[in-house]
Amino acid sequence: MIRTHNAGSLRAADAGSTVTLAGWVARRRDHGGVIFVDLRDGSGVVQVVFREEDAHALRNEFCVKVVGEVTRRPAGNENPELPTGEVEVTVVELEVLSEAAPLPLPVDDQIEAGDDIRLRYRYLDLRRSGPANALRLRSRASQLARGVLHERDFLEIETPTLTRSTPEGARDFLVPVRLQPGSWYALPQSPQLFKQLLMVGGMERYYQIARCYRDEDFRADRQPEFTQLDIEMSFVTEDDVIDLGEAIVSTLWKNLAGHEITGPIPRITWHDAMARYGSDKPDLRYGVELTELTEYLRGTEFRVFAGAIDAGGYVGAVVMPGGAAQSRKELDGWQDWAKARGARGLAYVVLDAETGDARGPVAKNLSAEHLGGLADAVGAKPGDAVFFAASATTREAQELLGAARVEIAKRSGLIDESAWAFCWVVDAPMFERTDEGGWTAVHHPFTSPNAEWVDRFEEAPDRALAYAYDIVCNGNEIGGGSIRIHRGDVQKRVFDLLGITPEEAQDKFGFLLEAFKYGAPPHGGIAFGWDRVCMLLAGADSIREVIAFPKTRGGFDPLTSAPTPITAQQRTEAGIDAKPKPAATAHTGTAGPAAPVADPV
Amino acid sequence: MIRTHNAGSLRAADAGSTVTLAGWVARRRDHGGVIFVDLRDGSGVVQVVFREEDAHALRNEFCVKVVGEVTRRPAGNENPELPTGEVEVTVVELEVLSEAAPLPLPVDDQIEAGDDIRLRYRYLDLRRSGPANALRLRSRASQLARGVLHERDFLEIETPTLTRSTPEGARDFLVPVRLQPGSWYALPQSPQLFKQLLMVGGMERYYQIARCYRDEDFRADRQPEFTQLDIEMSFVTEDDVIDLGEAIVSTLWKNLAGHEITGPIPRITWHDAMARYGSDKPDLRYGVELTELTEYLRGTEFRVFAGAIDAGGYVGAVVMPGGAAQSRKELDGWQDWAKARGARGLAYVVLDAETGDARGPVAKNLSAEHLGGLADAVGAKPGDAVFFAASATTREAQELLGAARVEIAKRSGLIDESAWAFCWVVDAPMFERTDEGGWTAVHHPFTSPNAEWVDRFEEAPDRALAYAYDIVCNGNEIGGGSIRIHRGDVQKRVFDLLGITPEEAQDKFGFLLEAFKYGAPPHGGIAFGWDRVCMLLAGADSIREVIAFPKTRGGFDPLTSAPTPITAQQRTEAGIDAKPKPAATAHTGTAGPAAPVADPV
Repeated sequence: MIRTHNAGSLRAADAGSTVTLAGWVARRRDHGGVIFVDLRDGSGVVQVVFREEDAHALRNEFCVKVVGEVTRRPAGNENPELPTGEVEVTVVELEVLSEAAPLPLPVDDQIEAGDDIRLRYRYLDLRRSGPANALRLRSRASQLARGVLHERDFLEIETPTLTRSTPEGARDFLVPVRLQPGSWYALPQSPQLFKQLLMVGGMERYYQIARCYRDEDFRADRQPEFTQLDIEMSFVTEDDVIDLGEAIVSTLWKNLAGHEITGPIPRITWHDAMARYGSDKPDLRYGVELTELTEYLRGTEFRVFAGAIDAGGYVGAVVMPGGAAQSRKELDGWQDWAKARGARGLAYVVLDAETGDARGPVAKNLSAEHLGGLADAVGAKPGDAVFFAASATTREAQELLGAARVEIAKRSGLIDESAWAFCWVVDAPMFERTDEGGWTAVHHPFTSPNAEWVDRFEEAPDRALAYAYDIVCNGNEIGGGSIRIHRGDVQKRVFDLLGITPEEAQDKFGFLLEAFKYGAPPHGGIAFGWDRVCMLLAGADSIREVIAFPKTRGGFDPLTSAPTPITAQQRTEAGIDAKPKPAATAHTGTAGPAAPVADPV
Repeated sequence: MIRTHNAGSLRAADAGSTVTLAGWVARRRDHGGVIFVDLRDGSGVVQVVFREEDAHALRNEFCVKVVGEVTRRPAGNENPELPTGEVEVTVVELEVLSEAAPLPLPVDDQIEAGDDIRLRYRYLDLRRSGPANALRLRSRASQLARGVLHERDFLEIETPTLTRSTPEGARDFLVPVRLQPGSWYALPQSPQLFKQLLMVGGMERYYQIARCYRDEDFRADRQPEFTQLDIEMSFVTEDDVIDLGEAIVSTLWKNLAGHEITGPIPRITWHDAMARYGSDKPDLRYGVELTELTEYLRGTEFRVFAGAIDAGGYVGAVVMPGGAAQSRKELDGWQDWAKARGARGLAYVVLDAETGDARGPVAKNLSAEHLGGLADAVGAKPGDAVFFAASATTREAQELLGAARVEIAKRSGLIDESAWAFCWVVDAPMFERTDEGGWTAVHHPFTSPNAEWVDRFEEAPDRALAYAYDIVCNGNEIGGGSIRIHRGDVQKRVFDLLGITPEEAQDKFGFLLEAFKYGAPPHGGIAFGWDRVCMLLAGADSIREVIAFPKTRGGFDPLTSAPTPITAQQRTEAGIDAKPKPAATAHTGTAGPAAPVADPV
């Protein structure tokens, strides 16, 4: 090593030693004849002292090596903020290892800079303590999770990333193959099929911190490549996977967030989550639950509600504590908010803080009886506001109220930003209606119906439940998985219901179905969205903060300028325009709108 | 868990317990009214006993759950070969979890099967102990290496795999980007540029078990995607990287191969390796060194040798102990062997076992004096054969002799298959001549000249040495790396010598050069070919054995049939045929034959 000591490790006990340090000039202060420099390396910062004539050329972010003596700082000059604050290093020898041009991005924790400039000069950004610590945290998170898994005899197995393209994989990245012109690989959206094949292969306990790819719009803080902690186990029940998931989450939050998860993480069924929180990933840091009013309001003459009720739909409400104090403008703002979400508006009444009387646009449409009992029905107090949603589609109305609930918590300051609230959302539905009137798998077509439904899901596909579970942290889905179907007869019935013909199934999943003929074990798994987990642990507000070289929206990398156009010669060499040989089997399946085969992180 | 116990864990002490097991029917033996089944799970095998009427339908590889009582086997029926051989499980309850169709590949360690059938049914292949153990070993190898690295404060950092394409990257896989039609990513051949950027970013100690990609012919047991253990460190010298490499290798071989590496791994310079072994990755499990005869034979009238000597080239020899006993046919076989390697033939003399007289085609061309001293000059004894190579290009002749050396060891049975011989090959040359008479970087253009040459490599580029090092195990290069250039002035001089203009450098490596302007620290690293390391540890003869789902030659996956043709709709959706927007910067650099920027694993 070029250095003998780490800058950040020096203490009063080192006084008198001669040390060699190497790092960066973090800050420089000139004091008549003497120059003080904060020398930074990976371990921290120490103050080094130069004679003016030795160091006049030093500028910020020069990379230097210094030899000097550790001395205690003069009394009164200690810096208690700094672990090395009791000492300084008096330099006797300076070597500039490399100079730094004027910086396009100051290496300074105090300075806010835009994402474009930060990512373009990511190597300067990473010298700041926040970004560097985020990567350190991620490295530790991966090691902690591996520890939990290896303790439990999991094997880390790498699965291919140059895989089979299927025509349905509209979000697959495709890769032309030079050696087989006209043939293409696809980059996988997850290792789902391979991890299931590993279970058929008897590997029993698999994990991988796997790179996955999705070529889609980067709304909602997504990246074209992302990482998941991917896990699959044989001979397990849902409880086993959930126990393992809790062990991982507990270990991470205990070690990296100082938060002890005591007792089992609460489980809530998918239907309860929708009914109470209007979300399949409820934020449980605060209350504010939804109330269904369909029965209460049955018979109302208010057309909006009556229409939903008559259509077999749903009317419900959510209460904003103290919401009656909002100005007219604030209440109008809710209408804009609702419209931005695609709703027609957000019906409300406010309850007078003194009298408890209901006012507002909806009040005059409701009968005196309905108005009179409303506060009790929804658990509102004088001074609260009550927001309503009604729809022929229960889920649509619940989701609007769920979003309103989140917005209420934000506007009313109900969120304890230091709190951690986890839950498992279990018993998800197997199927949902497609726009064409058929059925699609909510999770993916290999998800197993639960014991109650496995023999009769055809009777009521809309009510059939799956062994599917998501883990939610503060309203973020951080992981999800399921027990898979391992029996050919069940798989066939699921395909039948989904309208996937045997030919289509063969074309899309033939190799997996073939594998299932040879003694497939019961199995299930989970995948954690690793970028999101690390983001939450780091207290960051974007996954970009926990990715070494993230891309911006649109998949652009400001540092390398990827992606780029390619030349005609590259096209030719890569076989991009080659016609596939007619001999090759063309996979032209046209199977229906099956969900992508992946744990839905 | 569906089971209470692992099959392979049962011992005599468990006798009397009722257990639930789950696994596969590995072997079945019918004994009049009783059926014995070897039940296999991830932990091993135990014998389970059924009444005939309960188990008649069981066939090989059915996946079953059984409940039964552990009993000691009747005296004399124990199987000492089996850890569970003292007990059996008498089944009271059987549940077939899933049936198995007749097997296309028997799950039997004794049966040899072709790669195509093994890979097509890889999930059956992995139920065999050899393939399963290879993946288990790989999982352990990765954990052991991580242990060494985390102990030394390395950070695991994930770098992008959707990166910038450069026109020179003729072996890059390209990826069209749906959201920016006409723009393409490239899959990286290594994380080289990103790991150097991390060093500029002050991360100081980075590692990653990284997926890498190379779209080229799969000679020499290559895969289109492969894995390397990729490492980079700041403020280090060559010795620091070598020490770390030895710590990793020692830990792996001690724990996974039962081999203790005592003392430092020997280092040999690149030039010595070529001179003594005719290889930059010498197999040191045996002797048989090359002897240079250029001076000894100076003045010979034998045209083949004289031509090489006059051209300033090289004549040398390697001795095959006992080689005089070879038949004429065997000696002729060496000519075919040499021609298959692209040489014109392999000159030789044999030394009569009795008299020591030299015979053979070359003997009559050499003077009596040259013949008389030959045995002493090359260290041969009566009964040996001496093979010669001569060329105006020293390296060409040395490599032919080096290959002959390996072949001699094979044919003469000199290789101790249980031995492990490691070495570091250091002091590699910086540059070599291109066919066009220019210079190209042997390693890559960011490799640092060593201290002796850094200020004057232009004086004799052919003799300039680099801080570049490879680690070799039994003749396999398992890792390689270098100290990198971190000074702009040195980098510019290297580019000048390589004929890379500033414009070309900017186009190819602009973002790295830009980064180097801002206080780049001295840094260096190493990358281990992880597939090859695991292959050697597993005692396998192909990297395919340590990859879960490998591809065959040509990049074909017999299991999923990847790669496949794509449809016109897929082409359109993926933007494959989109014309790049004229506004975008076209990267049309035409820089010379620089080596790919990657540690050369």
